[in-house]
Order: sequence, then structure tokens, then C-alpha cells
Amino acid sequence: MEIGIIAIPPPHRLTGYAMATTYLMPVEMHNALVSAAYRARGFTAEEADAGARFCELAAWHGIKTHNAIKALHLDELFGSKAGGCVPGAEIEKLPSPYKAVQRWNANRKLGQAVAFEAMDAACAMADEFGVGIVTVDQAFHYLWGGGYVIDAAKRGYLAYTCCTAALAEVVPFMGKTPTLGTNPHSWGFPTTDAVGFPICIDWATSTVAMGRVQQLKREDQPLPPGAAVDAEGNETTDPAQVAALKTFGAHKGYGLALINELYAAYTGGSLPTLRSRWGNGPDDEKYTPHFFFQAIRPEALTCDFAQGRDQPQNIKAVLDDIRREGNADCLLPGQIEARNAAQSQKHGGLLFTGAEVAEFEHIAAEAGQTLDRTDLKTIE
Amino acid sequence: MEIGIIAIPPPHRLTGYAMATTYLMPVEMHNALVSAAYRARGFTAEEADAGARFCELAAWHGIKTHNAIKALHLDELFGSKAGGCVPGAEIEKLPSPYKAVQRWNANRKLGQAVAFEAMDAACAMADEFGVGIVTVDQAFHYLWGGGYVIDAAKRGYLAYTCCTAALAEVVPFMGKTPTLGTNPHSWGFPTTDAVGFPICIDWATSTVAMGRVQQLKREDQPLPPGAAVDAEGNETTDPAQVAALKTFGAHKGYGLALINELYAAYTGGSLPTLRSRWGNGPDDEKYTPHFFFQAIRPEALTCDFAQGRDQPQNIKAVLDDIRREGNADCLLPGQIEARNAAQSQKHGGLLFTGAEVAEFEHIAAEAGQTLDRTDLKTIE
Repeated sequence: MEIGIIAIPPPHRLTGYAMATTYLMPVEMHNALVSAAYRARGFTAEEADAGARFCELAAWHGIKTHNAIKALHLDELFGSKAGGCVPGAEIEKLPSPYKAVQRWNANRKLGQAVAFEAMDAACAMADEFGVGIVTVDQAFHYLWGGGYVIDAAKRGYLAYTCCTAALAEVVPFMGKTPTLGTNPHSWGFPTTDAVGFPICIDWATSTVAMGRVQQLKREDQPLPPGAAVDAEGNETTDPAQVAALKTFGAHKGYGLALINELYAAYTGGSLPTLRSRWGNGPDDEKYTPHFFFQAIRPEALTCDFAQGRDQPQNIKAVLDDIRREGNADCLLPGQIEARNAAQSQKHGGLLFTGAEVAEFEHIAAEAGQTLDRTDLKTIE
Repeated sequence: MEIGIIAIPPPHRLTGYAMATTYLMPVEMHNALVSAAYRARGFTAEEADAGARFCELAAWHGIKTHNAIKALHLDELFGSKAGGCVPGAEIEKLPSPYKAVQRWNANRKLGQAVAFEAMDAACAMADEFGVGIVTVDQAFHYLWGGGYVIDAAKRGYLAYTCCTAALAEVVPFMGKTPTLGTNPHSWGFPTTDAVGFPICIDWATSTVAMGRVQQLKREDQPLPPGAAVDAEGNETTDPAQVAALKTFGAHKGYGLALINELYAAYTGGSLPTLRSRWGNGPDDEKYTPHFFFQAIRPEALTCDFAQGRDQPQNIKAVLDDIRREGNADCLLPGQIEARNAAQSQKHGGLLFTGAEVAEFEHIAAEAGQTLDRTDLKTIE
């Protein structure tokens, strides 16, 4: 869970509001605000709306680490204010003789806008061929891969995405120098008919995120063993000494992190250690991340099912078998996000803490809007 | 590394032969022997040849855990002698409107024969559409997924396969009851032009294999922490107490193990805890594993590369960057297999220990053949 680069709001912003209060923000208000913030930075209406729609999706599912606050902060750090993202850029869809794979040059267009469109294109190819892939060169950060695969899974597809993360901050297995991104993978499955929500398997290939290290440093707590190395490449559990992260699961996580770099390398991605480090290498090098999207139609996979079950019934039977006696504590991946979404549904809007609302006030001010928190309902 | 169910040959078979001696078996001799062993069990010539070809591939790459000895032993335990595999079975290729995805009912045909044919079919679809998938219901064990993806990667494809493992012997994250297979994933990349061999990322989703537990028990050594549970579902490091395995990387490995079960469930796979346990459930249930194969043509992904590099040069540049200063000890996945293959190439045949040759003598006897180890060259 990456939270590190979200600024902690200064205490004066919170004066008079209990930290534990939960605020309910109507979706329309949230989206209008976030869209205005993107437009104030020069993004087109279409880009701003895609950016807002994505942030809604993250907040709806309780993804605190990749909501609007993080999205706009990332844009500041790596995006439109840093050259990594170009407002109004046009996607170039390269011609190809291969009808189930598309290759796009995103020209550094806003990541969320590109990602929604690419996932949709993969789904459209899957409708025709059973499977569709979109590979995206010259991309910008898309934030939370789980959002795109949950969205596609709700529409009935087996969806997958991976990307190269902005910075190389992970050491390969047996190495000492960070040369890999935290390179996440996200799989979504259309299991709503079977279990009530889409299964979503979604995580980075580092043991922890750099944001978690910063959080532990603030809290003066040690890291778990095997999570990070110091500047000499030696393992450390002291968050103050951390220079780079390790992959989860030793060589297995390393292999998974390498997959993202390889998909990128086949497409047009360049040296991992130059990524997002504009001006730190030759002018004719590339500094952009890469996206990979895939969708499969479940009907294309169906052979037949035992005991006269249909596909959702078969999936339910398999998942019930996995969670049989002794496994009552096992969650399905995506279950926590589904619970958060149910809370959003129940209250009819997006739930934020007082600290988050303070950040939204800041976002509103930047966009020349006003956000009065006394207009928001609260939930105790 | 799974070695447990390979019988340790009794000492008398090894009398007079130093354990450290390495024997060189010509490929033709190996394949004739293995093919004869399969034919003696009722398999067709085509199945027997596919079985032998696969065992050659495993032995060529030094895969001790999934060579002919394991293959024929697995066939005894779960295959033609146990009802899990049906010699001479015909694959039924179901019609589909989706041209880049095929769905096959393997009718329990020999796993290696089905897997080679399915990977080839995925590659042929990739030639036309950029990507191709074959999903296989009613399958039998295919042994070492790495073999199929290395083979396809050598022919120029980004290849992937996963399968549901024969038995449910892994507990889901936070669970106590084994309801998941060791469910491996294998990715192969056509990197021979870039680094001299195909990158192959290939492992089970359990922390260790049950064979490793049995080996440690024989050696009176403890397991690493977090690898296994006892009959009550409590973690143990005593191999004698192990009842089930844990997934690697906590919830992340659990998610990866679930993917295999879900691909299977969409296709026609049934309850994991019934898998390979013929007669332990209703007659109209299914007891078979499932395979999933995918191939992508690298040309379908290409956008453009920095500094005028071509695709192999770009891949080499990325992989060199990952293994830059400080990372000299990092291997690329598949590098050990490539070194073993280079040894096989150098000596012009397959390399086996004396204990393995003793097993081959046993295989020869079963097939009514003779194998005289004094005919084999030795390497000191």
C-alpha cells in the first residue's frame, strides 16, 4: 500500500474537526472538482473527465493510496509539471496486420485516459477474437491497475494489466543496485454472478512500497526482514537506512518484475534506470513507462461443466471448495475492495477522512473552486 | 525443485559405479527407450514420441525433477495405471466463433502430447492474430511448463502456460485446509538474439514442493519458516509433521495460485479437492487438471526503440541495465537451464547420474529393452 508521497496536511487545516470523522462526498461533486483541477492544469475536458472517473473508481473501492489526492500529486511530481505527461496529447494507434493486438504510442497522454481507452479496445477485440491485447509505449502513470481490471471484469471480461512503474527502486534478486520498478500486475475476473464481486488480484512485485517505508520511518517502526536494502545494497530493517526495495518471494517476485520490463522492452520501453528521470541521459533516449492490457471473453474458454452446472455455478463451486472447512478466514482477492464499494453504495457517495477533505480543499483552491466541508454529510 | 516421488534406487543397483560419475546418453538412445516404455503401456507411437521428445527437452536443460524417470513414475501414480490418462485418446477441438482462442477437450490424452500440440496451435493463431490462446479441459499432467515455453520462445514467441496441479496440497492464505494445487506458471521470452538463450520464468506457487519436504525429512533437516502446515493447519518447520504447503509470498502467491483454478473453472475444471482423486466423489464430477497456453508474436508489440536500436538490441540494453554495477551476481531466469543445455550441447547428449541410469535400466526392463551402461560414455 503506497502512501508515502501524499503530503500530510499541516495540523491547522484540521482544527476543529475530529480525525475520526468520515465525510461523504457526492460522486458528482468529487468528479466536478477533480475534473476542474485537471482542466486548470491544461488537460482537455475528455482527459479531465477520465481522470475524475478513475479517481471516483479508486475512492469508491476504498483505495486510499491511489485516489484523486495521489493522482494530482503524481501529476505534479512526474506529470504535466515535470514533462512526463503532456495535456492534450493524441494517442497514435500504429497500423498492424495482427488483428487481436494493438500497439499504441500514447505520446505521454494522461495515464488514466489512455488506460480506460486501451482496456476498452482490448475488450472490443476480445468480443471478436476471444482475446485482445493493447500494448502502450510512451505512457504516463496509470495509478491503480486494479481499477481498470475491476471495471472490465464488471463488464464480463477476464482482464489483465501490468505496467512499468515510474522509478527503478527495486533490486533484482541477488543484486545490490535498484534497477527494476515496483512493477505491479493486476488480474480481474468476471465473478460477480458467482460470488457477488469481481475477483481482483492486484499488487506490486516489491515486498513493500517505498511509501510504506516512509510511513514506518515516521512511526519509528522497523521494516519486516527481507524487504529492503541500504545504500551499500545490504539488507536492512531500519527505514531510515533504506535506499531500495527487494522483490517479494525472492527469485519468484524478481521474475514477475522482469515480465513488465520485458513487455515494455519488446514494445519500445527503454532503460529502467532512466525511467521518469528526464534530462539524466541522452536526448534520444526514452524516459516513459509502458502499459500492457489484455481481455478475454469467458465464453471463448467454455468446454463443459460437471453436474450440469453453468459457468458461474461452476466458478462458485470451485471457490466454495477452496474456502471449505478450516478456511473460513480466507478472503478472496478483491473482497476488501468489494466491501468498501458496498459502503460507498450504502451511503450513496465517496467516503473520505478529515485529512483527505483538507487535501480536497487544497485541490479546489488550486482549481479556483470552493469546497465547504460543512456542506458534506458526516458518518460517525 | 520437486524430487520426492522419484524412487531412490536400492544400493545394489549402484554396486561398482561411483555416485559422482556422469553418464552421457545419446538423444536417440534415450528417446527410443522412453518411447518404447510409453508404447509398452499402451500409448500410440505419436504419443510415445511426444512423451520422449518432452523428456529429452527436460534432460537437455538439466531438469532433474521432470525427466523421463519422473514422467513414467507419474504415469504410474496418476496416469494410465490410475485412470487419469487414457492411451490413444483423441483431442476434441470444440468449434468456436472466437478465432484467437481454441478450447479443447483432451479426453485425458497424454499430457506432453497435448501440450506440444496446444502450444503449437497457440503459436499458429499468434502468427495470424498476434496472440493465440488454447485452453484445455480434461487434461493429464504435462510435467514441466518451462519446456513448452522455452520451445516456443526458441521459435520466436512470447509464450505462457499455467495448469492446475494434480493434487490440492496447498492451503490458501490465512487458511488451514489444503484446497489449492501447487499450480505453476511458466513464461518464456524470445531473447536468444538479445542474451543467447530464452528467458524462462517458471515456478510453482507453493513456497516449496512436497518432494522437497520429503527430501528434508530424509536428511533430518528443518523446513524454512512459512513453508508448510501440520494436520491442524498450524505452521511447522518439522518435515515429519507436514500435512500441507503454504503459498509463496503470502497473499500474493495465493492470488497467483487462484489464477490457475479460475482459468480452469471458466473452462470446465471442477473442485480442486477432487482433482486426481478418482472415485472419491460423485460419478458425474470431474477429476482432471486443466492447461492454459498463450503465445504472442513480438512483432505485434513493436512501436519504436530509442537510439535506433532494433528489438533484440533494445531488449539487450534493458537487460544489461538491470544487471548493471552491483548486480553481477544476478542471474536471468532461464540462465541455469541454458547453462545445462550448453553442457548437453558440448558433450553431444543427455547427462545422467549413476542413480538415474539405474532407473533407466529399470525403465528398459519394463519395456522389454536392454540398457547396458557400459555402452555409455562417462564424464568425470
